[in-house]
Amino acid sequence: MEISSSALRLPFLFLLVPLLLFFLLSPWNPLHNLSGGGDSAGRRAQFPPKSLTSISPPPAEPRSPPRNPLDPLTVGEIHRVRSILSSYQPFLRHFPSIQSMSLDEPDKSRVLGWKSGDPIPSRKAFVIALLDNQSHLLTIDLDSGRVETHEISSGSGYPMLTMEDVVAAVQTAVSYPELEASAAARGLSVANLSCISPSPGWFGPDEEGKRILKVLCFSKQGTPNFYMRPLEGLVMTVDVDRREVLQFSDTGKGIPIPGRANTDYRFRPGNKPPEMERINPISMEQPRGPSFTVTDGHLVKWANWEFHLKPDQRAGLVVSRVVVRDSETGAARSVMYKGFPSELFVPYMDADEGWYFKSYMDAGEFGLGATAMPLVPLNDCPRNAYYMDGIFVSADGQPFVQSNMICLFERYAGDAAWRHSELTVSSGGQELREARAKVTLVARMAASVGNYDYTFDWEFQTDGLIKITVSLSGMLMVKGTVHDNMNQVQNQDEMGPLVSENAIGVVHDHFITFHLDMDVDGPNNTFVKVNLVKEENVEGKTPRKSYLKPKRHVAKTEDDARIKLSLYDPSEFHVVNPSRMSRLGNPSGYKVVPGGNAASLLDHSDPPQLRSAFTNNQVIWVTPYNRSELWAGGLLVYQSHGDDTLDVWSQRNREIEDRDVVLWYTLGFHHVPCQEDFPVMPTVAASFQLKPVNFFERNPILTARPVFEEDLPVCRPSESASII
Amino acid sequence: MEISSSALRLPFLFLLVPLLLFFLLSPWNPLHNLSGGGDSAGRRAQFPPKSLTSISPPPAEPRSPPRNPLDPLTVGEIHRVRSILSSYQPFLRHFPSIQSMSLDEPDKSRVLGWKSGDPIPSRKAFVIALLDNQSHLLTIDLDSGRVETHEISSGSGYPMLTMEDVVAAVQTAVSYPELEASAAARGLSVANLSCISPSPGWFGPDEEGKRILKVLCFSKQGTPNFYMRPLEGLVMTVDVDRREVLQFSDTGKGIPIPGRANTDYRFRPGNKPPEMERINPISMEQPRGPSFTVTDGHLVKWANWEFHLKPDQRAGLVVSRVVVRDSETGAARSVMYKGFPSELFVPYMDADEGWYFKSYMDAGEFGLGATAMPLVPLNDCPRNAYYMDGIFVSADGQPFVQSNMICLFERYAGDAAWRHSELTVSSGGQELREARAKVTLVARMAASVGNYDYTFDWEFQTDGLIKITVSLSGMLMVKGTVHDNMNQVQNQDEMGPLVSENAIGVVHDHFITFHLDMDVDGPNNTFVKVNLVKEENVEGKTPRKSYLKPKRHVAKTEDDARIKLSLYDPSEFHVVNPSRMSRLGNPSGYKVVPGGNAASLLDHSDPPQLRSAFTNNQVIWVTPYNRSELWAGGLLVYQSHGDDTLDVWSQRNREIEDRDVVLWYTLGFHHVPCQEDFPVMPTVAASFQLKPVNFFERNPILTARPVFEEDLPVCRPSESASII
Repeated sequence: MEISSSALRLPFLFLLVPLLLFFLLSPWNPLHNLSGGGDSAGRRAQFPPKSLTSISPPPAEPRSPPRNPLDPLTVGEIHRVRSILSSYQPFLRHFPSIQSMSLDEPDKSRVLGWKSGDPIPSRKAFVIALLDNQSHLLTIDLDSGRVETHEISSGSGYPMLTMEDVVAAVQTAVSYPELEASAAARGLSVANLSCISPSPGWFGPDEEGKRILKVLCFSKQGTPNFYMRPLEGLVMTVDVDRREVLQFSDTGKGIPIPGRANTDYRFRPGNKPPEMERINPISMEQPRGPSFTVTDGHLVKWANWEFHLKPDQRAGLVVSRVVVRDSETGAARSVMYKGFPSELFVPYMDADEGWYFKSYMDAGEFGLGATAMPLVPLNDCPRNAYYMDGIFVSADGQPFVQSNMICLFERYAGDAAWRHSELTVSSGGQELREARAKVTLVARMAASVGNYDYTFDWEFQTDGLIKITVSLSGMLMVKGTVHDNMNQVQNQDEMGPLVSENAIGVVHDHFITFHLDMDVDGPNNTFVKVNLVKEENVEGKTPRKSYLKPKRHVAKTEDDARIKLSLYDPSEFHVVNPSRMSRLGNPSGYKVVPGGNAASLLDHSDPPQLRSAFTNNQVIWVTPYNRSELWAGGLLVYQSHGDDTLDVWSQRNREIEDRDVVLWYTLGFHHVPCQEDFPVMPTVAASFQLKPVNFFERNPILTARPVFEEDLPVCRPSESASII
Repeated sequence: MEISSSALRLPFLFLLVPLLLFFLLSPWNPLHNLSGGGDSAGRRAQFPPKSLTSISPPPAEPRSPPRNPLDPLTVGEIHRVRSILSSYQPFLRHFPSIQSMSLDEPDKSRVLGWKSGDPIPSRKAFVIALLDNQSHLLTIDLDSGRVETHEISSGSGYPMLTMEDVVAAVQTAVSYPELEASAAARGLSVANLSCISPSPGWFGPDEEGKRILKVLCFSKQGTPNFYMRPLEGLVMTVDVDRREVLQFSDTGKGIPIPGRANTDYRFRPGNKPPEMERINPISMEQPRGPSFTVTDGHLVKWANWEFHLKPDQRAGLVVSRVVVRDSETGAARSVMYKGFPSELFVPYMDADEGWYFKSYMDAGEFGLGATAMPLVPLNDCPRNAYYMDGIFVSADGQPFVQSNMICLFERYAGDAAWRHSELTVSSGGQELREARAKVTLVARMAASVGNYDYTFDWEFQTDGLIKITVSLSGMLMVKGTVHDNMNQVQNQDEMGPLVSENAIGVVHDHFITFHLDMDVDGPNNTFVKVNLVKEENVEGKTPRKSYLKPKRHVAKTEDDARIKLSLYDPSEFHVVNPSRMSRLGNPSGYKVVPGGNAASLLDHSDPPQLRSAFTNNQVIWVTPYNRSELWAGGLLVYQSHGDDTLDVWSQRNREIEDRDVVLWYTLGFHHVPCQEDFPVMPTVAASFQLKPVNFFERNPILTARPVFEEDLPVCRPSESASII
């Protein structure tokens, strides 16, 4: 019943994608059960030196029991599930690979009926295990110690990869004899390579019936940023379970490996800083500490908000039971039952042999939580941040700690929550200058899915608005080329611009589809499209010829709620509770407010788009609540054929009026790289909002207090303060 | 040569739209040359108590001479222009009304050739004066003391209103005998009214040949927020110059005035706060002070940026000569010659008599700077902000100070400028966790154009990105109605929802068109649309069926650069310097990155849309630089017929390739009101970005230093800190 010790835990962290060949050739390889890295804590503590004090050490004892029906599995519970499965008859001969293990949440009605202090409903785990090339779906009752349901998937996909799968694939590939020749042809040995294992997508019958991974290699000579140094044209297709190279292709021996110059992004005290003036230290300061509380590990309360926040190995960060207090009555009112990124689709735009398959579905293939490394204090999150660990499960069914994977902080960015300035007479000529500083609460995590870093923010405002932001940084996936200047490129032949000598930044998209189980003042909601329609005036009635009129369209079925955004046919998108009217007779609602966005334009019959058909509507789908419809690309996404997507479920065109509905929103990015993205990209962000619309009777922060000078902290510079 | 004293200056501030009837009936009325308000400074100092120390008092002496060719007219220069005009022969009999007076900027080539230390080019003023219903356009040479050019406009529009125009119109209207009966029919006297003077738009021949204003009245009984209490159906059309009511219409005597309950938005220490937990004090702290400098009043230098920042009575805030330092060579490189909001178009969506004309063009009709009140320290801008005054001109040609109208501050909002997290082997198993805190510089002003508050932010990032944000707050323009519940409204008849009893929030749009004179590495630039085109693959070449390919289209003429945004035909929009190639052969460029946006859908022949035809393209136009093409709606916008808009200029379809070009971007909002917008709206923001694209050879902040704990300030709570 003990969690892996720090020394044992480390290898799990080390095994994350991209897996580095080093481990396979070194005593660090956890498959050889060697230990190491005992100095890791010391290393992390070097940078930044004092900021890690808030990091909790991995618990030596099992955590306290769950306090909330939605709390993730504890260390003790994970051990118990493993123990139950170990003595489960079908697994006696061979213990399966545990591809995922997580809380099987109680029925929504049970959760909604539960109150703090009640005994929590019986705890269950949902396990996806792989045995003999079959995906086993099991629910295990922790109280009875029994496997309650056990089903073998008949669908097309495989479960999320484990780190062991990745290790196996890379190990298989790097042991393949022909690789040495490919390395040698480029003046390298296999020991100079870092190899990664992108998922293969799915492209027809040849790729069915077995789990495959593509393995690509890079030179790690002289740089930690091997992504910038591809061995272009080299692709190995590996059967993960049989540990066999199915196909070895190297068409790029004539393509130079891009150089290592300027690829290292690590801070070194001696680095030449950018040519700019010093920036004096600046910090968000809260000397009285944060205003939020986190009780029982997961229940966050702040200002007028309350929600359950938990790490998830697949979704990364899940918010549940999001409740806002009514500004006047103080009553707790439901906004959302559950919200999380359901899938992340990243198609690259290159048809070449080494590129066509790159159409990642990162949440379902690798896991956003599984790839969320510890956040860097003071740089990923501000000084006033609080950190939360994830307790996840490895392929052998053992728990491990993903430390500091979520941060939670209050933000003041210098903006006003509302303002009005005027001169008025009602008080005898007094100047009216009213403004209220905006303070928000941010819950953040950052997934490093190989080269790319995705930061997910849930930001809560006191006016009832929730802003969801995805920020992209990290490394481009670059393509080797013989060219070192665009003047050698004919007729826009390349799939993107040169971002460095011999390195093309290949165009690609990112689509993040969020599952938003809205429960506005209760589960039963209605989706209303408020369309702004141009009306032409009756001649002579007024001098105006046209105006826009809001027309409300209630979506009766799923088809009515498939929304494609258009600047020229604008609408607002409301989720309302038809049973809860404001005093003025407006239904209580929240609206989805899109921001900058992008749509997937791939052919609907193109395999990547088939599998990610949940991006066919840009931006919204609405489905009736269905316990099993959580993952927009399907429960088993890996090599899936697209037979279990949101698009498929929604073709039933179910009724959605005055029902418990789930809204799905897709945030998209087109990315045409440029030189500034080399060797690491400045952050690009996009967001959307969930905004109250006639939910409150009036501006809920009308009576908020302004900030006065005497409220603010008294600060002095640190003795040793330097430049940023 | 003295500026108006505080007592004289105050009336100008007090005269801003909306003008309140109080002044017309009280000794404060500046038209009666009464003085008052000597205690104003004391009043302002009451709130917040200690925060106004940075406010500069109005200068008793003329300011120091201008130091930069772009510096706005000084107090002394304004006096000198007035003196020159006073003795100018055509104005000897009658001194005209000075509708606007501003620096006539030297030719761009002169400015570009000027270096710090050089004598500044001869100073000239551009004056628009009104005399006998004619608009006189004059340039005055301050050195020679002569009127250099003098032209009488033959176009359709009138100049920007002065506060005296507004006073005259309101005074004329409230003196109109029938108003007493309209007030009495609603149980009020004229003394209970606040009247405002919206511009009339232009709707045909009846409205030509004279300057008119519409006057609307509200009850100010029991509230400073009279906007929420319209006398619906009452409209007075006033001839401003003849001081005559042309039309008096009152069709709303049966419509109740919405009540005053909950309309007051002022802070009172005894106010019941919203139902939420206390938020501990939070502040952006910079104990070593800001890192930027402002030299000679207007030249801002920060990190790698340098720009000229000045207040403008019409545009509000103008940034000029925006230069960024190359991250590697340190060389100063031009990005933009000039950027400012050129026009703000706000059409309301109601055809009724009292509403159809509401189609404001706030910059050209009222002035964004003229309506920019002092920012509220600690609430409009953070504690570390620096404030800048505007020196503007009143109708009599005298200068006045618009104090604290711009703030400038460094922002740290807790985000990362870039990040990557990984485990790597190149340093022997060291964990790689790199992130860099993002610090930016914000220049802000807020125009309170009557009911609405528009905050304009120019935010500069060290990675070369400029983010331009417009935030909306303030009051809705509400419409009185007999209804107090939506269940009384038939068939979606209303032009918006009830936001309070008897008050409809009328649907409306906001469009802010920015003038962006891009000079990327020099004046001559080319606009390139990088279109992402779906390519279908040749059967059998690869398993993929489709991908997106970037196709570059160089805009040869203006027609090629008229951009309507579409999610389904995506492009990037680059302004590149075809003569400056990166080492890789990519042209140096900046791209315009749209965010959330809205398009005007009014009929192109509808008068408001004719006049604001610059919003026909959503989002971009590109024009060749033309000194006279600054104002998208025309130089003289008031009652214009749309004969001098960006759309008209651009119909010439001029050549724009490798020329000095100006890019115009429109940021739009559709606003369907809701109860949360009552009685003052939570801030709504939208933005767009100017982002380097192959401008730098690589990520310009790659070598930036992370934040370390020892850099940060040491803070303690203030003794008296309270809730926010």
